[in-house]
Parts: sequence; structure tokens; C-alpha cells
Amino acid sequence: MHPFDETTALDGAPGDPVRHGRTSDAYWTFIGPFGGASAATALRAVLEHPERAGDPLAVTVNFCAPIERGRFAVHVRRARANRSSQHWQVEFRQGDGEEPVLTASIVTAARRESWTHQPATAPALPQPGELPAFDNTRSLAWVAQYGFRFAEGALSIDQAAPEPPNSARSLFWLQDQQARDLDFLSLLAMSDAFFGRIFQVIGRIPPFGTVSMTTYFHAAADELAAHGSAPLAALADARVFHRSFCDQTAELYGRDGQLLATAVQIAYFRA
Amino acid sequence: MHPFDETTALDGAPGDPVRHGRTSDAYWTFIGPFGGASAATALRAVLEHPERAGDPLAVTVNFCAPIERGRFAVHVRRARANRSSQHWQVEFRQGDGEEPVLTASIVTAARRESWTHQPATAPALPQPGELPAFDNTRSLAWVAQYGFRFAEGALSIDQAAPEPPNSARSLFWLQDQQARDLDFLSLLAMSDAFFGRIFQVIGRIPPFGTVSMTTYFHAAADELAAHGSAPLAALADARVFHRSFCDQTAELYGRDGQLLATAVQIAYFRA
Repeated sequence: MHPFDETTALDGAPGDPVRHGRTSDAYWTFIGPFGGASAATALRAVLEHPERAGDPLAVTVNFCAPIERGRFAVHVRRARANRSSQHWQVEFRQGDGEEPVLTASIVTAARRESWTHQPATAPALPQPGELPAFDNTRSLAWVAQYGFRFAEGALSIDQAAPEPPNSARSLFWLQDQQARDLDFLSLLAMSDAFFGRIFQVIGRIPPFGTVSMTTYFHAAADELAAHGSAPLAALADARVFHRSFCDQTAELYGRDGQLLATAVQIAYFRA
Repeated sequence: MHPFDETTALDGAPGDPVRHGRTSDAYWTFIGPFGGASAATALRAVLEHPERAGDPLAVTVNFCAPIERGRFAVHVRRARANRSSQHWQVEFRQGDGEEPVLTASIVTAARRESWTHQPATAPALPQPGELPAFDNTRSLAWVAQYGFRFAEGALSIDQAAPEPPNSARSLFWLQDQQARDLDFLSLLAMSDAFFGRIFQVIGRIPPFGTVSMTTYFHAAADELAAHGSAPLAALADARVFHRSFCDQTAELYGRDGQLLATAVQIAYFRA
């Protein structure tokens, strides 16, 4: 079993209103599981549900509190079902009070053929083989689960405070370290597989945590299935760091420069 | 009373778990209320709640079904309260089955002083007085509630299908038509006060509807209070139109080029 499928697995039957997940050390970060893995676990709860119809379109995940090591309850509710779209709510609960530690809203929809136009163009990147593999073994556990080949904005900490601050932009090839065919679960996780923009901007790692992330999928299941395990061209940037919060924007491109997903985040920092 | 405050008003006491709103013709659009007004109504339910602490930081609104003219129930729940952030869930319900027609997740947080850095720069725009006021009286009701002065990408429909498609980018000054000091409610509504990007890209108005929007606030209450009723520099764009859905990105800048809010949307279209 691929470690990503193991970390996002759920106990219980797919139609149960409450299932259970378990954190895995393989995707551990500072003080909790990798947010992308948690988001994918929430999405899995919806995608496996027998009443789900359509492909995932929009996912918003709010990280309400640190998820402790171990088991957590996954509550799944379909709030609304229309003819061609559905609105789902997911909540992770944990601890003595069974307090929510994560909430998510997930929209699924039929991806019918339509007029197609992509104003966004995939960034120019050297071929993956022409870029060095980032050493992903010397950092947090989750980092080792991904292959990164940076063309721009590789993480470099322990710098003297750069003045002016470094660019927040990173451009790189991203893929599962252990090959796995792309699907909505892994694409969602990869939309969070960026180092905090502030790390590279200030050249060090301050107290930091993502508060909320939203990912839109721009491809249908058949298009993702055709992608296979090739790396994605990944672009991340930030627009503002102010009053203890900062943002992140991301784009993930597949074969032939197709935009597969876009994502935004807002995160807490102390600096 | 300003029409915006009227359209976002709620019956019942601020601490009630269920309050009621009412659609207003003043902010009507094709088949329902202006989404920005609905989003602001959801935010108002949270901001007026006696247990709310902190400024709004992130708002995601899912438009589950058209909201019919008239009254709707507003369910408010605080899912999680931390030392310096809170996670709220809001649901509008309407009709015989009291089915959800809108769901929202809203994060509030203490906006403490911190290191500040804004890589995003406000777009260069002529002074508002140097640009013509868009004729907002010949379209939908909600449009007349806003003043638009376009520097780029003014809506122009009834074009022969442009080939290549027009740019999705618009750049303009945006303000309440009837002066009103900026606050989080109006800033949230303004983050949705863009014409569907596809209208200008294809030069006509196809069947279209926003499915989900996410807005991040990058300023604290004291900063918004200092803005007054001056217009905001507004920038909107899109990256992809594919398989019946398209995206929208937006930035809203205040005095001295401060980035006040960023927003994304995903919308359905048929073309």
C-alpha cells in the first residue's frame, strides 16, 4: 500500500455518518499531520461515500486546532444534493470533548464538456532531469514523501535576515517520492505541499501554521487518470504578510501545460 | 439606513442560534440575491454574535441552491474557539424542507502587530475622476448599488464571439454607489462585485452561477475604519474556463496601495 493511501485511510463503512482516521508518522510535520494529508482524508470520506456524485470541484479546509497523534472521528454530512452538484461538510473531532479539530466543505459536480479556454500558461521550466532533486531527507517527515526539483525559490534557511526580503515565489517539479498515479486525493495534498512562503522570504522558520486552505480542481477524473505519475509543474507565491497572517497562492500544471488545480491559503506567523 | 445594511439585516437577537434574513430587490441579480450580499449577511451573523472575538480573516461561502425571494433562516454555530482564533459555520435554510441554500465557514482571529511585508503592489490606475463612471443603471439591480470606473476590461456584451477571446482581466475603481464607510461586510460584498469573467471573455452572458467563493481579509478593523468611503482599486482575472466551470481571482487595494482583501471564486457556465 502506498504510504499516502495508508495515511488517508478511513475505518468503517463508506456510508457511515462517522468514520475514523489515524495520523501517521510518515506525514508528520511540526506539531501535527501534514495539512495536505488531512485535507485528502476529508476528501476521501466524501469520495468514498455511496451517495456522492460528480468530481470534486472545490475544497476548503479549516485547521481549527492541532490534530494529536492517533485516532480521530470523521463526521460526513451531505448538506445539499442538486441535479449536477453536491455540497458536503466534513468535520474531524478528537479528544475528550470530541471537539472539532478540522472542518471542511467540499463541492462535487458533473464536469460536462464545454467551451475550453485557459488564459493561464504553465511556467517555463527546464525538464525535471535537468534540475537537481531537493534533499528531502533532512527535514520533516512529510517532506520526504515528495520529490521537489526547484527551478526557482528553493527553500534555504539559516540566512541572515535578507534585506530586502527574498521573493516569495517558488517554481518547481513536484511529485510523490514513491510513484503513485495522480488522483484528486494526491492532487489536493500536493496543493498544500509548499513550504511556508515566509520561510524563504525571511530565511528562517518562525512559528507558523496554516489556518485555512481552498483548492479548486480544474480537471475531470478522466483527465487526471490520463496523467499518471509524472511530476506536476508547481508555482507558489504570496502577496502579503501583515498583522500576524500571510497568504499563499499556488498553481499546479499537468501534461501539455493543463492547469489541474489552483489553491490559496492563509496562515498564521509570529515574526 | 443604507441599502446595504438593510439587505444584510437579521431579525432576532444576536446570540440566537437561528436568526432570519430577507432578500431585497435592491441587490437582486438574475435568479437570486447578489452573492456578495448573501455572503455579507452570513458574516454579519457571526460579527454580531456576542461570543465572537477577533476580526474576520477567512470567509468561504458555498452557494448550494438559488435563494428564493423572501425570508430565510440563518443558522450560526461556533465550531471551535481558541485563544486567538475562532471557527464559525453558518447555514441559510429556506423552503418547505428547510434545506440548506447557502453554507459558509468563517474564521475570526486576533490581528496582532507583526512584521509587515507586501510583495503585491497596487496596480497603476488613473485617478477616479479621470475615468468615466460605468453606466450602472441599465443592468441588474445589484449593479446599480456600486460605482465602477474601469481602466481596463469594462463589460461589453453583444459582441460577435471575439477570436481570440478577450482578456479576462479587469481593473477599476469600486465603491458603494451611495457612500458608506468601508467595513468587513462591505469589503466582503465588494470581493464578489465583479461581472462574471466569462461575460467579457466571450462577449455575451451565458448561463452562469458562482458555486463557491473564498475571501481573505488582510487588514484589521482599525485599518478598515481609517479607509472611509473612498473607492478601492479592484483587480479581477481568470485562469481557466474548462468542463463547465471557470475561476476568478480578485484583489482589492485601499489607501496607499494597501492590499485589503484577496478573493477566489469558482463558477458554473454553459457555453
